[in-house]
Amino acid sequence: MRVTGMGVRITRAATFDVRFPTSTTRAGSDAMNQDPDYSAAYVVLETDAGLAGHGLTFTIGRGTELCVAAIDALAPHVVGLTLEEITGNMARFWRSLAGDSQLRWLGPEKGVIHLATAALVNAVWDLYAKAEGKPLWKLLVDLSPEALVACIDFRYIEDALTPAQALEILRRNLDTRPLREAEMRRDGFPAYTTSAGWLGYADEQIAALAQAGIDAGFSHFKLKVGADSATDLRRARLLRKAIGQKRRLMLDANQVWGVDEAISAVRALSECDPWWIEEPTSPDDILGHRRIRDAIGPIGVATGEHVQNRVVFKQLMQLKAIDFCQVDTCRLGGVNEVLAVLLLAARFDIPVCPHAGGVGLCEYVQHISMFDYIAISGSLENRVCEFVDHLHEHFVDPVRVKGGRYLVPSLPGYSAEMKPQSLATYAYPNGSSWRDARAVAGG
Amino acid sequence: MRVTGMGVRITRAATFDVRFPTSTTRAGSDAMNQDPDYSAAYVVLETDAGLAGHGLTFTIGRGTELCVAAIDALAPHVVGLTLEEITGNMARFWRSLAGDSQLRWLGPEKGVIHLATAALVNAVWDLYAKAEGKPLWKLLVDLSPEALVACIDFRYIEDALTPAQALEILRRNLDTRPLREAEMRRDGFPAYTTSAGWLGYADEQIAALAQAGIDAGFSHFKLKVGADSATDLRRARLLRKAIGQKRRLMLDANQVWGVDEAISAVRALSECDPWWIEEPTSPDDILGHRRIRDAIGPIGVATGEHVQNRVVFKQLMQLKAIDFCQVDTCRLGGVNEVLAVLLLAARFDIPVCPHAGGVGLCEYVQHISMFDYIAISGSLENRVCEFVDHLHEHFVDPVRVKGGRYLVPSLPGYSAEMKPQSLATYAYPNGSSWRDARAVAGG
Repeated sequence: MRVTGMGVRITRAATFDVRFPTSTTRAGSDAMNQDPDYSAAYVVLETDAGLAGHGLTFTIGRGTELCVAAIDALAPHVVGLTLEEITGNMARFWRSLAGDSQLRWLGPEKGVIHLATAALVNAVWDLYAKAEGKPLWKLLVDLSPEALVACIDFRYIEDALTPAQALEILRRNLDTRPLREAEMRRDGFPAYTTSAGWLGYADEQIAALAQAGIDAGFSHFKLKVGADSATDLRRARLLRKAIGQKRRLMLDANQVWGVDEAISAVRALSECDPWWIEEPTSPDDILGHRRIRDAIGPIGVATGEHVQNRVVFKQLMQLKAIDFCQVDTCRLGGVNEVLAVLLLAARFDIPVCPHAGGVGLCEYVQHISMFDYIAISGSLENRVCEFVDHLHEHFVDPVRVKGGRYLVPSLPGYSAEMKPQSLATYAYPNGSSWRDARAVAGG
Repeated sequence: MRVTGMGVRITRAATFDVRFPTSTTRAGSDAMNQDPDYSAAYVVLETDAGLAGHGLTFTIGRGTELCVAAIDALAPHVVGLTLEEITGNMARFWRSLAGDSQLRWLGPEKGVIHLATAALVNAVWDLYAKAEGKPLWKLLVDLSPEALVACIDFRYIEDALTPAQALEILRRNLDTRPLREAEMRRDGFPAYTTSAGWLGYADEQIAALAQAGIDAGFSHFKLKVGADSATDLRRARLLRKAIGQKRRLMLDANQVWGVDEAISAVRALSECDPWWIEEPTSPDDILGHRRIRDAIGPIGVATGEHVQNRVVFKQLMQLKAIDFCQVDTCRLGGVNEVLAVLLLAARFDIPVCPHAGGVGLCEYVQHISMFDYIAISGSLENRVCEFVDHLHEHFVDPVRVKGGRYLVPSLPGYSAEMKPQSLATYAYPNGSSWRDARAVAGG
């Protein structure tokens, strides 16, 4: 592990509860989440060196305050350390958060405390990348296989992936990293769009947005399902018709079905030739995903935005229960655990198609997909990274998507730094956006 | 469902952060939790009828404030309802908490928000039992199979247990409920003790406490393992020698091992003839538990205190990955979800041996084990309920254990009501106990 950031000491973790009133437009609506207010528990790691690390975990409204409080509870594991102390043993640092002997009881490694761990760990990586003057994907690409493996806590996954196996995977594509890096800089990483198919959108809106997506160069379109079966079929036919036979259609049920329900629902939609069904049932149901997958092939099974940690991903892969790994940069405990899952996916030969949307997730996942391609998978086959065109205007270094592809981010950091004005306006409950909303409601 | 509590309206949910400074004695210490301060996020549901429902979720120190805040966030689903509105459709009520469309993102049904759900749901059942003038176990025993099934949210478990199957299980032992109720009133429910074997205890302390346990009538003793292998073996031999060959010895690793590590560690301790290994690895690793169980038979595999919800228990049972189901009354979302797991266990013929200890858990689980025996399992074979002799003095209606058995609680309610003086003294951070501790530390 290279020694970096000497003298950069983290002096304070400042937290923010930021909420955008998205529920007013039904953007983001699905069968389980009817009225999300896209939000973030946000943290700024201040240092004595003029640099700051910004990190967030994505939430959908109420409860953001719980994640903020959890960041505050975990912050003593971060504040006071130098960047060098952290990067000198990243796996140990990560475990100091995930393994806090009292906070661990509230998980372990799941739910609110793990979401908070993600915000802090992502902020550390943002700081690290800024100290190195590189975007995160490039920082990761420039780390040696040994340094990358040293970032990972292998507890509970060694029966599926040993450090030696992880090293072997990373060494496999080491020589050809520069070729793929050049390709990414030239072409970007393939994206798919979810913007056309929210459950709260009217049929005409779907058709119009599908056409807009085609015009923008997208080849993969996702539709929210899980309403009544007639509605699902009508909407799926509509989207299939709008995008034609050659483009890919994905379905997303957001966990509303039981196992048997999922099987019959997907079969009823199979005439629309879906590429995958996403979150067909509870994200905790590993055996259920396997049963569904066995019953609906060749339609693939995808999940991940609610897969709580590397232990559950490990099993989904060991059991061949999923065809696509939708890693989430905030649900997992930040970059370190994402690295573990990328390597597990490579070991089990499962393509990674990250979950994004919300607020800040697109900014994050572009780095992960590019690193995965350049340093781990070496393949673009069956790999698309989710894109939703919401709320990017609040970021200092927003994603740039062109021709249906994420272009490489070039500013140093992990890209989730919000503009100070946005942090202030959407601060909950006292930012001007929320004060205005209350004034309207009250008046 | 019988109509009860007409006119009892919940007017307020008052929350408390209560922490006991148990880390000073190493009581409760194990391989993962070196220094727990047994704590509770506590809620009182006040009503307009002079009754109050008390509920708690158990925590171990830092982070209790997160559970308290989560109770506050969920409380709007409870406050304002009458008891009749709740008991009229218990499953719908339960899902209104577990399925809150924004808070659900932070789980779903796991971690902080699920622990908070438990506190609120347990408080509702405490209120319900008090309104009926019965201890909880008796309230449950007096409910019809139909009424019990109507308490359960079958989402995500119907592939393993349908409402019809649940009804059939409950009807099986309906006629003989009075016999077992009389037996419980006469003999109580078998308990086992964990008090002798905490990891922080010296060898002499273990031997002395084992003898005290034998003298008190216990036949089952649990030892914390997961230190280095020589220490584990020395302590296991010591406890086996102290309790003789006829009494049962259980081991508890509190999740410190990986899958392969667990297998070799348990094999190395097999000469001490353990009855079960508890939490050999991550509670999320269903496939791992199955692999361990296959490798160490006839030693049984037990887990549950960190099994996050009915979906994970379902799979542990479907895959035959555990021999003992250690249901936790606060980890699961309160009584309603515990009922689901008791019925799943009956369906898969797995004995339920609840997790207890901490603070308030013993007060809770006695009701669960007695109800399980009287109305569901009808058997005491391989069933023991954990007992730890800590902190009972803080409860209005503390457990009574005699001759190694829990005696039936007789006061109305769910027994987790703390004395007002204890709530005040151990309030964190401003109760007198914590003020005194800070004065000592500061002076």
